[in-house]
Amino acid sequence: MAKLNDLLEELVTANRILASQGVVDSFGHVSIRHPDNPKRYFLSRARAPERVELGDIMEFTLEGDPLDPQGRRPYLERFIHGAVYELRPDVMACVHNHSPGVIPYGVTGRKMRPIMHMCGTIGHEVPIWDSHRKFGDTNLLVESMAMGRDLAKTLGKGRTALMRGHGCVVVGPYLRVAVYTSVYLELNAKLQMQAEGMSRKVKFLTKGEVKKVTDTTTPQNVNRAWENWCRKAERPYKE
Amino acid sequence: MAKLNDLLEELVTANRILASQGVVDSFGHVSIRHPDNPKRYFLSRARAPERVELGDIMEFTLEGDPLDPQGRRPYLERFIHGAVYELRPDVMACVHNHSPGVIPYGVTGRKMRPIMHMCGTIGHEVPIWDSHRKFGDTNLLVESMAMGRDLAKTLGKGRTALMRGHGCVVVGPYLRVAVYTSVYLELNAKLQMQAEGMSRKVKFLTKGEVKKVTDTTTPQNVNRAWENWCRKAERPYKE
Amino acid sequence: MAKLNDLLEELVTANRILASQGVVDSFGHVSIRHPDNPKRYFLSRARAPERVELGDIMEFTLEGDPLDPQGRRPYLERFIHGAVYELRPDVMACVHNHSPGVIPYGVTGRKMRPIMHMCGTIGHEVPIWDSHRKFGDTNLLVESMAMGRDLAKTLGKGRTALMRGHGCVVVGPYLRVAVYTSVYLELNAKLQMQAEGMSRKVKFLTKGEVKKVTDTTTPQNVNRAWENWCRKAERPYKE
Amino acid sequence: MAKLNDLLEELVTANRILASQGVVDSFGHVSIRHPDNPKRYFLSRARAPERVELGDIMEFTLEGDPLDPQGRRPYLERFIHGAVYELRPDVMACVHNHSPGVIPYGVTGRKMRPIMHMCGTIGHEVPIWDSHRKFGDTNLLVESMAMGRDLAKTLGKGRTALMRGHGCVVVGPYLRVAVYTSVYLELNAKLQMQAEGMSRKVKFLTKGEVKKVTDTTTPQNVNRAWENWCRKAERPYKE
Repeated sequence: MAKLNDLLEELVTANRILASQGVVDSFGHVSIRHPDNPKRYFLSRARAPERVELGDIMEFTLEGDPLDPQGRRPYLERFIHGAVYELRPDVMACVHNHSPGVIPYGVTGRKMRPIMHMCGTIGHEVPIWDSHRKFGDTNLLVESMAMGRDLAKTLGKGRTALMRGHGCVVVGPYLRVAVYTSVYLELNAKLQMQAEGMSRKVKFLTKGEVKKVTDTTTPQNVNRAWENWCRKAERPYKE
Repeated sequence: MAKLNDLLEELVTANRILASQGVVDSFGHVSIRHPDNPKRYFLSRARAPERVELGDIMEFTLEGDPLDPQGRRPYLERFIHGAVYELRPDVMACVHNHSPGVIPYGVTGRKMRPIMHMCGTIGHEVPIWDSHRKFGDTNLLVESMAMGRDLAKTLGKGRTALMRGHGCVVVGPYLRVAVYTSVYLELNAKLQMQAEGMSRKVKFLTKGEVKKVTDTTTPQNVNRAWENWCRKAERPYKE
Repeated sequence: MAKLNDLLEELVTANRILASQGVVDSFGHVSIRHPDNPKRYFLSRARAPERVELGDIMEFTLEGDPLDPQGRRPYLERFIHGAVYELRPDVMACVHNHSPGVIPYGVTGRKMRPIMHMCGTIGHEVPIWDSHRKFGDTNLLVESMAMGRDLAKTLGKGRTALMRGHGCVVVGPYLRVAVYTSVYLELNAKLQMQAEGMSRKVKFLTKGEVKKVTDTTTPQNVNRAWENWCRKAERPYKE
Repeated sequence: MAKLNDLLEELVTANRILASQGVVDSFGHVSIRHPDNPKRYFLSRARAPERVELGDIMEFTLEGDPLDPQGRRPYLERFIHGAVYELRPDVMACVHNHSPGVIPYGVTGRKMRPIMHMCGTIGHEVPIWDSHRKFGDTNLLVESMAMGRDLAKTLGKGRTALMRGHGCVVVGPYLRVAVYTSVYLELNAKLQMQAEGMSRKVKFLTKGEVKKVTDTTTPQNVNRAWENWCRKAERPYKE
């Protein structure tokens, strides 16, 4: 139980870091799967990530039903998280955000590819999901399991997927690396745009390089950033 | 009377948020219509939005005459607000700003269109008003009701209009959503510029999507941002 | 004497504002002409503008000789100021900076022109001075009256001139408006670059508009920004 | 010994300044050669530069073996530093960073050249090293002396070299000027990209200008920035 509490505190920290690093503004959210029950996940009530506190964290079934709402209003788009956890048993954390750099890719169909080693964990190529294709005119929000599952299918076996006119989803085998990948997906977006503006011939990471970077991005590497981000977000750091 | 005071405090908060979010620098202003008298509006004296205090708020007739100036100097461009309230009974709040991203659109004639769901409330296409067309060489400021009315006509039934070589006007059915639309108009400007730099074929929100986004942007959604922005601007948050 | 002290305090404030507004980094400087002796000017010793204090301000002849150095090392480029005051009796304040946005214009020969009303005081078109034309390979610094006078000639009757591979010079009839013009020259640089990236047909301010804007930019307008900038730079504001 | 302690404190300051100036994020590192033993250098343990403290500084042989690790984990890429010190007896300080602006150059092959006087110390043209050419698919990190020496060869007699898909290395005859060059390499990256986006004919500094700028960039010049950066990084300044 102490361990679970630590995980939920870390989820609060993840919310604050995503805000402090400019990945989310007042919208977007991050969840973790329940460590002892793969059919459950934890996610804040509907609140700006920078404001999220421990008391805001709610437990959900994969279908998005809150177990003990206590009057707290959940995010409308919680179905993104459940659908991803349902399809991908390896995923333990999920970020949904609207980080500004990724938007131009989603609306032009331009494929994002990793431009530098720290961005290798985004994968060799980032797929794009367009809600309009299957669901027509909506408010673009993922408000049902049907939409969430369609998005999860686009994500496939990868760690990232863009959502046209909306944002992206980023997943990982543990929370810190999902946050790490979110931060560097945004950096990649800016740098790829600049590089492709300079030249049509950009040398992205090769498939082999992407694999080696991903395999050698250890929790120790991620923690070097995590310690720094904790201080910037004014949260305690635990190794 | 207590209620009016709350509204004026919220107007002060709106000034601070617009500054804190980078929508205004030392110039630009925001008003609300008098809740009990549609022929009056409230607007600060001529002061940088980030510095505005409760004692700076003045009451004006729609023609821009201050009711009780007490020696306070009004904004030269207050006519923007009066002309908009005159033409549009549905409008309860009005922002005039020079947010940097919108300027390039106004001077090139490039039409802004919503690129992501949070920007849907800017409308399907943002019209551009050029003071030079009807008023020739001026200092570009809207210093008369004639100019204000001409601008309001360009705004039409929409929520946003650009002003060539100057800035924009953003309106809404209540104050918080007008501020919200101002923040996301600026974001849209930056992202559209990037996307159109990447590709000629940008998939903007469809008309149907714009309508659905606008219809489902509830005060609850806006408040998620408002709570966050209040803290950043060091102002108390009231739901 | 009290009045002179106030002016020098204001010069300190100008240094801090230029830093706080991003016009200068650790380099660049700002001077005022002596109010009672047109053959003298005041300028800090060689120090980053953000660090300048009252005790750093030195008095110089127009030729750049310090009157009472007290061991303080002057800026190598003080000749910019003296040469401008020599040629232009109407100028009472002078800023030399390397604000990042103006650099690309100086090295490409692209002419800056005012894109919005707040930038009107930069003038209808900004001339470019290239030290290489007359002085060949140097370290690009204006280290003599000969170079300063050549630069001043390019400035001519205007308020702004770019220096290729180096920065710019901005002058005004009083200190606050020279700072104001410096801030908005940088903004103009960014916005013009964006607008010209979008379209070849940018509608800049007409000559008539530039004149009207310049004529109606009153100390009251400038003070609206000055009050705000003082607070941001943590300096007291005096009207 | 007191002098050595001062140097190590200055190395801590250099770490903080590089972070505060946006040259490094949570990754990247900076070293100095041992002032009394050219076969040794000092470098922090593996930690984000913004967090580095005196107790983190370790001493290494040029081959990268720590002399007294005390359980501290070194940077995987310390071989960059040793290889540079081995090849270049004139170099006393070395920065390795991933400053965002340089990335697009490394992946497109576009050569960086100095665009303004403060950037002159980057050299007339910045060479690019691609680890893939000789080492094939790796995680792009310089994890051996063989890779470090190959990189150092590309650096040659210069002060800067880019690393494709990774970052850059910057060296200098003393610590402060290596930091200074790192800061202005990043600025050059941004401004060159803008200028070349405007025009194919950019007038860079001539070879003669680069030489004169480099020769006249004195410790006094660098200290003007260093004093300012110390305050921003909340570190004491010593002349």
